Amino acid sequence: MSHATIDHRRSAQRIREDVETLAGAQFTLSSEAIRRYAYTDVYRATLDYFTSAWQELGFTVTEDPVGNLVARNRPPGEAVFGVGSHCDSNRNGGKWDGTLGVVCALEVCRASAELGLDLPLQAISFLEEEGSGFGQMVLGSRIVAGRLSEEELREGIRAIDDGRPFWEHATQAGYEPERFRECAHILDDLTGWIELHIEQARVLQDTGRRLGVVRAIAGYVHGDITVQGRADHAGATPMDMRLDSAVVAAQTILELERLALAAGSGTVGTVGEIEVSPGLINAIPGRTRISLDVRGPEDDLVHQVVSDIDEFAQGAAADRGLTASYGQRQTVPATPLDDRVVAALEAAARDTGEPFTTMISGAAHDTMCVAERVPSAMVFVPCRDGLSHTPEEDADPNDAAVAVQVMLGAIEALTAQRAAV
Amino acid sequence: MSHATIDHRRSAQRIREDVETLAGAQFTLSSEAIRRYAYTDVYRATLDYFTSAWQELGFTVTEDPVGNLVARNRPPGEAVFGVGSHCDSNRNGGKWDGTLGVVCALEVCRASAELGLDLPLQAISFLEEEGSGFGQMVLGSRIVAGRLSEEELREGIRAIDDGRPFWEHATQAGYEPERFRECAHILDDLTGWIELHIEQARVLQDTGRRLGVVRAIAGYVHGDITVQGRADHAGATPMDMRLDSAVVAAQTILELERLALAAGSGTVGTVGEIEVSPGLINAIPGRTRISLDVRGPEDDLVHQVVSDIDEFAQGAAADRGLTASYGQRQTVPATPLDDRVVAALEAAARDTGEPFTTMISGAAHDTMCVAERVPSAMVFVPCRDGLSHTPEEDADPNDAAVAVQVMLGAIEALTAQRAAV
Repeated sequence: MSHATIDHRRSAQRIREDVETLAGAQFTLSSEAIRRYAYTDVYRATLDYFTSAWQELGFTVTEDPVGNLVARNRPPGEAVFGVGSHCDSNRNGGKWDGTLGVVCALEVCRASAELGLDLPLQAISFLEEEGSGFGQMVLGSRIVAGRLSEEELREGIRAIDDGRPFWEHATQAGYEPERFRECAHILDDLTGWIELHIEQARVLQDTGRRLGVVRAIAGYVHGDITVQGRADHAGATPMDMRLDSAVVAAQTILELERLALAAGSGTVGTVGEIEVSPGLINAIPGRTRISLDVRGPEDDLVHQVVSDIDEFAQGAAADRGLTASYGQRQTVPATPLDDRVVAALEAAARDTGEPFTTMISGAAHDTMCVAERVPSAMVFVPCRDGLSHTPEEDADPNDAAVAVQVMLGAIEALTAQRAAV
Repeated sequence: MSHATIDHRRSAQRIREDVETLAGAQFTLSSEAIRRYAYTDVYRATLDYFTSAWQELGFTVTEDPVGNLVARNRPPGEAVFGVGSHCDSNRNGGKWDGTLGVVCALEVCRASAELGLDLPLQAISFLEEEGSGFGQMVLGSRIVAGRLSEEELREGIRAIDDGRPFWEHATQAGYEPERFRECAHILDDLTGWIELHIEQARVLQDTGRRLGVVRAIAGYVHGDITVQGRADHAGATPMDMRLDSAVVAAQTILELERLALAAGSGTVGTVGEIEVSPGLINAIPGRTRISLDVRGPEDDLVHQVVSDIDEFAQGAAADRGLTASYGQRQTVPATPLDDRVVAALEAAARDTGEPFTTMISGAAHDTMCVAERVPSAMVFVPCRDGLSHTPEEDADPNDAAVAVQVMLGAIEALTAQRAAV
């Protein structure tokens, strides 16, 4: 089938204008970075901006009991296709992360109207994806997914700025957190979901692709390996009398790289923190802690790498008379995305003739919470040098316009398939 | 030849009493540790203690123009054999480091008198070996060795406590720093020099030796290798697109161990500091700095290891598209000690029937400054678990008495050889 074609130049121009407008002084708490989070005036102003824009298109705009924004062009109960992302930012953020996804959701709605497609659409801008207000990532979408208890919302989750509970802040902002369970209903009518986001890495840029179709969101394990040896004098202790924890840590760092490469299928492993004790130039490290970040779209492989590196570290330590132990901080399973939505995006991407790839997301997104109820996928656009969560974040509205074309094509196809059933 | 034999039990008892007395409240600024350094009341009290003890033996006690203590039983111009160490401490020190060497020098003098040997002896207690007062290690012996300029003493070297110059403090304490060049003369009459010290490592303890004859003091190179890569998102960056500086640093840590072992001859290499940037669990380390401490009795081997590890790091970095650079902090040459003094100590040690070894010192000592003018060696005694520079420092006066026997035997032999020439 052939798809409707958007006016690329006009879409890119509108996307640029929206993003630049929302980088203005009234939409950020900081003049050095984009800083906006739940229940602040600048966040309210951002929601108001989007509300007006969707109302101009004839959409009905509501907010759920905690403040997730919902805009739809069909009455409740009718099937709609979902698009959206989040419009809060990191505390030292840029103007693209999240916001571009909501702006492009809006552009999909505009294009659908202009092209006379009148696709059944529902946009969502999720609350507090970055955790800048309450220190909890993907908070809005986790409430929608029913992953948080009343106790957590009443007491456990508190504002970074003043330590007061989420519940109080939500109430004060005019919401009804006591009805938080009803938030789940914002997904009730969705037949599918597509989120656009900047890639936050450099794969697309470095391989010359304008678009990534995301087929899975990686799960991850965060933990630490601590090697315990003995702190001796670096000058006075012969090489064969040492219990040097840094040497075992070094072996473990290299083995983690080997294991991740051997696991394949997009599995990655990183040691990002190294803490040496006592940490003096003339003392053999008695204790060394290294952090582990292991991710991938296949949970079995991720957990196998973690298990193998734990076993390796223990063995390497024991071979030298030291000990090593593994402690887990957190584990999150992978989110496979929907084959049909992925295939529709791939087909629409091929139609554009632009270079694209199918990939996995190493970072977490609201779509993780949507995907368990709604057939979902994501679209990535390149961001300069992989930079995100910094004011230096940059992306190209022309790439985003290509993504809007692809989303529109996929939604058109999926909606037509559904109608044909 | 057969040597005079000391009363081991009595010597051990006196050594214990001296060490314990000097750990008393009037000899330390801290109740939690031994803390004494140049020109404090507690340091003055310590010098007074030793002065009285040597005067009781009929020695003449003087202090040089900056405060190095000298006790001798022969008039100026006559040949004497030198013994001694230092009696200042680390700021969080123990009662054995340095002080035991001065106490045992005193015990050598006592034993020589009691046994009717009347050996020609000169003891020295060097000022400020630990640098606790003025932040400069082996300060007194470096002044004696002529390694410091007037400008450094007048202006450059300042008290840790109040920032005022060494010169002012010395003058205020009654010394004549303007005559600092005359300090060199305290070595003029020495025909040899032996310093006793705790080992500050665990070789003697772990190999069941009661004594170490030190044949060289290791030189060292201190420096850093910095690996520069790229900080990317740990989840979103595939294994084959990373410029991970921690991996190259890990390779370098393992290679340093291999190079030091391959160099042999007591060469050691240590990475004691590791600094990762940005140092987050979910970020690939863009920059990693590791410190290098390479030591050994053979300067050529030490410098070869440093050169090889520099080359290795650059190569390992380049192989992966990163860069690495080496920066030197400090280099100190090795101090070979005198073969005849070493041989005399070994012979005397064999005579005792006690287990001993000939070894190198990985740590710096005042003897480094003495040895360039005077045939010198050192004697190490075990310290518990290699601990030093801590209040937990511990050693056994019975081992020290064995060392006194060995020193006395060696001095007796060397003095007799000299008389026979």
